Amino acid sequence: MALIKRLDSRSGDFARTLRNLLAFDASEDEAIERVSADILKDIQQRGDDALLDYTQRFDHVQAQSVAALEIPKSDWLAALESLPAEQRAALESAAQRVRNYHEHQRSETWTYTEADGTVLGQKVTPLDRVGLYVPGGKAAYPSSVLMNAIPAKVAGVAQVVMVTPTVNNVRNPLVLAAAAIAGVDSAWAIGGAQAVGALAYGTQTIAAVDKIVGPGNAYVASAKRRVFGTVGIDMIAGPSEILIIADGTTPPDWIAMDLFSQAEHDELAQSILLCPDADYLDQVEAAIERLLPTMPRADIIRASLGGRGALILVADLDQACAIANDIAPEHLEISTEQPELWAEKIRHAGAIFMGRFSSEALGDYCAGPNHVLPTSRTARFSSPLGVYDFQKRSSLIKVSQAGAQTLGRVAATLAHGEGLQAHAASAQYRITPKN
Amino acid sequence: MALIKRLDSRSGDFARTLRNLLAFDASEDEAIERVSADILKDIQQRGDDALLDYTQRFDHVQAQSVAALEIPKSDWLAALESLPAEQRAALESAAQRVRNYHEHQRSETWTYTEADGTVLGQKVTPLDRVGLYVPGGKAAYPSSVLMNAIPAKVAGVAQVVMVTPTVNNVRNPLVLAAAAIAGVDSAWAIGGAQAVGALAYGTQTIAAVDKIVGPGNAYVASAKRRVFGTVGIDMIAGPSEILIIADGTTPPDWIAMDLFSQAEHDELAQSILLCPDADYLDQVEAAIERLLPTMPRADIIRASLGGRGALILVADLDQACAIANDIAPEHLEISTEQPELWAEKIRHAGAIFMGRFSSEALGDYCAGPNHVLPTSRTARFSSPLGVYDFQKRSSLIKVSQAGAQTLGRVAATLAHGEGLQAHAASAQYRITPKN
Repeated sequence: MALIKRLDSRSGDFARTLRNLLAFDASEDEAIERVSADILKDIQQRGDDALLDYTQRFDHVQAQSVAALEIPKSDWLAALESLPAEQRAALESAAQRVRNYHEHQRSETWTYTEADGTVLGQKVTPLDRVGLYVPGGKAAYPSSVLMNAIPAKVAGVAQVVMVTPTVNNVRNPLVLAAAAIAGVDSAWAIGGAQAVGALAYGTQTIAAVDKIVGPGNAYVASAKRRVFGTVGIDMIAGPSEILIIADGTTPPDWIAMDLFSQAEHDELAQSILLCPDADYLDQVEAAIERLLPTMPRADIIRASLGGRGALILVADLDQACAIANDIAPEHLEISTEQPELWAEKIRHAGAIFMGRFSSEALGDYCAGPNHVLPTSRTARFSSPLGVYDFQKRSSLIKVSQAGAQTLGRVAATLAHGEGLQAHAASAQYRITPKN
Repeated sequence: MALIKRLDSRSGDFARTLRNLLAFDASEDEAIERVSADILKDIQQRGDDALLDYTQRFDHVQAQSVAALEIPKSDWLAALESLPAEQRAALESAAQRVRNYHEHQRSETWTYTEADGTVLGQKVTPLDRVGLYVPGGKAAYPSSVLMNAIPAKVAGVAQVVMVTPTVNNVRNPLVLAAAAIAGVDSAWAIGGAQAVGALAYGTQTIAAVDKIVGPGNAYVASAKRRVFGTVGIDMIAGPSEILIIADGTTPPDWIAMDLFSQAEHDELAQSILLCPDADYLDQVEAAIERLLPTMPRADIIRASLGGRGALILVADLDQACAIANDIAPEHLEISTEQPELWAEKIRHAGAIFMGRFSSEALGDYCAGPNHVLPTSRTARFSSPLGVYDFQKRSSLIKVSQAGAQTLGRVAATLAHGEGLQAHAASAQYRITPKN
C-alpha cells in the first residue's frame, strides 16, 4: 500500500475527496465534559482545598498546601544554569528573535481632534494578569513557553503566571529554563481542569487571571471553553497542518522532510503537497519511501501521512493558490521561484513560508513569528497568537460643548426612532447647557 | 421604598455588597440549548428545506423557496426614500461619523528585512464574507446595523449578508434603510437559530459566511456559541451597564437621565454612580424621583434602578477610579472637571466618556466609536467591536540562504531538545544546500 495518497485535481470527484480528507471528528466527549465541569465547580466552591486534592489524586504530588506547589524562581534559574551551553544559547537566540518580531505588533493609543474640539480615539492597555498553561510529560515544549509568554510580556502584561503539572514531582528543566528566559513572573506545579479553574476563579492562594492561553489535553480544552467569558481564552487548536505549494525546483528530500516534520507531531496531523508536475510528485513519493525508515518517529509519520496526507497534482500554480485559499491552512510553504508572486494570491493562511529556505521548522522555533496559529480552516477568520491578544482597547470620547449641539440633535432623532426616550433626553440636555 | 440603593464605600461589607450587585444569573437554559442544537443539525442536514420549514413555523412567513426570502435591494432603497428627511439625514450623518472613526482602526500589512536578507512580516486581509444578525420586532435597532456593518465594510469585507426575521411578513423600514446606508450587500428575511445555521454551514441557496456578528435572543446566542469554530463570532453580550464617576459639577438632572438611558434598555441593565459628595448624591436621587414619572419606559427604568442600580458614596475620585477598574464597565462616564486626569487612571472599560457633554447616548448613536462593547467585566480582556474584528493576519516568513545557516542551527538544536527529529532534519537540510 502506498505511504501517501495521490490525488488529481482534474478528477471528477476531487472536490468531494479533498473535503473528506480535510474533515476530522471534532465531537466533544461527554464524559470528559462532565468531569471538567465538576472539577471547575469544586474549585470554585472549595478553592485551595479542592486544588490540593486534585493535584494529589491526579499528579501524585503530596504537598501540604497550595503555597508549597509554587515553583520558586531559584529553581528556574538553576534549570537554566544546568542547560548545555548550546541549548541555552539556542533558547536565548530564539527568544530574542521572537521578541524582536513581536515588538512590531504592539498597538498604541491614538486620538484625533475634530474642528469643533471634540476628541475621539482609542486607548490601548495591556491585560493585568495572564495564565499560561504548559502541558506536562512528553508534550512539554519549551518553544511553546516562549511563543505564549513573550507576546504577553511585549504587550506589557504585568503578571504572567505559568501552570504545569508535575506528575510524580517530575519537572521539565527545559520548560523552567524557557520560563526564566521568557520573563514569566510565577510558576505553579498544577495542571488539568483544576489549574484552569484556579486561574479563572482564583483561590485563597492563587489570584485570578484575566486570560488563559496555551495548549492542553482534552480536559484542559474543555475547561477553557467553560471558563470563557469569566476570562479570555486563546483558540482551541485542532490537529496541526502543513500545505506545500511546489513548482518542482526544491530538492524532493527537503519537501519530504517538511511533510514529515508536520506528520511527526500526531497521527491526526495533516501534510499535503500541491504541484503541477507529476514527475516531481513521483520524486517526492520516492523520497518519502526512502527517508521514512530513518525517522525515529516513523510510526506516527506513517499513520499521519497514510490517513490524512496527500500528494495532489494540480493544473498550475494559480489553481494551487485557489485550493490553498479553500483549505486556509495553518502552515503554507510556497516552495517556488519568486514565491512573493504566489503569496500575493493567498488570502487565508496562518503563516506563509516563502522560498525553499523557509522550512516550517524554522518558523516553529526561531524565525520570529508565533508558532501558535489558526487550525482547521479558522485562518479564514482568525490570526496567529500575537501581542494584540494581550492588549485591549477602550474607546475615548470627549465631546466639546460645540460638538454636543450637533451630535445631540442627531442622537435625539435616532433615539426617538428607536423608542428610547431617555437616550433622547440625555442627548438633548447637552444641547442647551444649563451652565 | 427608595428607587435606587445608596451604598457607602467605607462600610465594612461594601466589597461583598458591590460583588452581589454586579452578579447576575448567566446560566444557560437547557431547553433553549437543546432546541437550538436540534435546529442547527437539521439545517446542516436538510439545508434550504429545513430553513423554509422553520421560517414558516416560527415567523409565519409563507414563502415558496428560500430564494423568495431574499429582500431585494430595491426594497431597501424604497425604505430609505420613504424616511422623513430629518431621520434620513440623522442616519447618514451617524454613518459618516462611524465610518470616519473606524477608518483609524484599519491595520496594514508590514514587513521588515534583516541584515542577512531574511524578510519577516504580517499580511493583513479582510474576511471574505460576514453574516450580520439583526433581531426582529421591538429590539430592531437601525443604529446596530450601522455599528456592525460599517466596520466590516471599512475592513474590506466583500460580502456583508444581513439576516433579520420578519414575523408575519412585517419588515422594519429603518433597519432596511440603515442597511442601504451602511453598504450591506444582501439581506434575507430569516432569523433565529435557523438563520445562524444557514450562515454558518451554508444551504443550497445561501452561501456560508466566515463570521457572524450582531445581537439576538437566547436561541440566537446559543446557536452562535455552537457554531463557533466553524465560523468566527462576536462576543455574546450580557446586560448593558453604565458607571458614572461624578465630581458634583454636572447638573444632577443630566446624570439622572444618563442613568435612565441605560436603565430603559432592560430590567437587568445596570446603572451605577460614584461620587465623593453625599449632598450631590441626594440631588441626583431627588432628580431621579422627579424625572422618573415623565419617562415613557418608567416601569423598566424603575425595575432596573431598583434591582441593579446604586448611588455610591466614595472617599475620593482616586477610589472611584479603583472601583471602576474593578468593575471594568461597558460604559464609563467621567463627568468631572479635567476628565483626562482621571481617564489616565482607568485600565479597564469598554468606552470612556469624558466631561459633562459626553453623554453615553451620543456614543450610542453618532459620536463615531462603536456601541458594541464588552459587558460583564470582560473589558478586562476584550475590546469594542472594530475593524480589527473583520481583518485577520498571516505571518510572512522568507528566510534567505544566509539566514537559513544560522536559523537552521538554532532550530535543529531546539528540535532535538523536544525529540522532534524530522523538524531538526528539515532545518538542517537548509544549512548546506544541495544546489
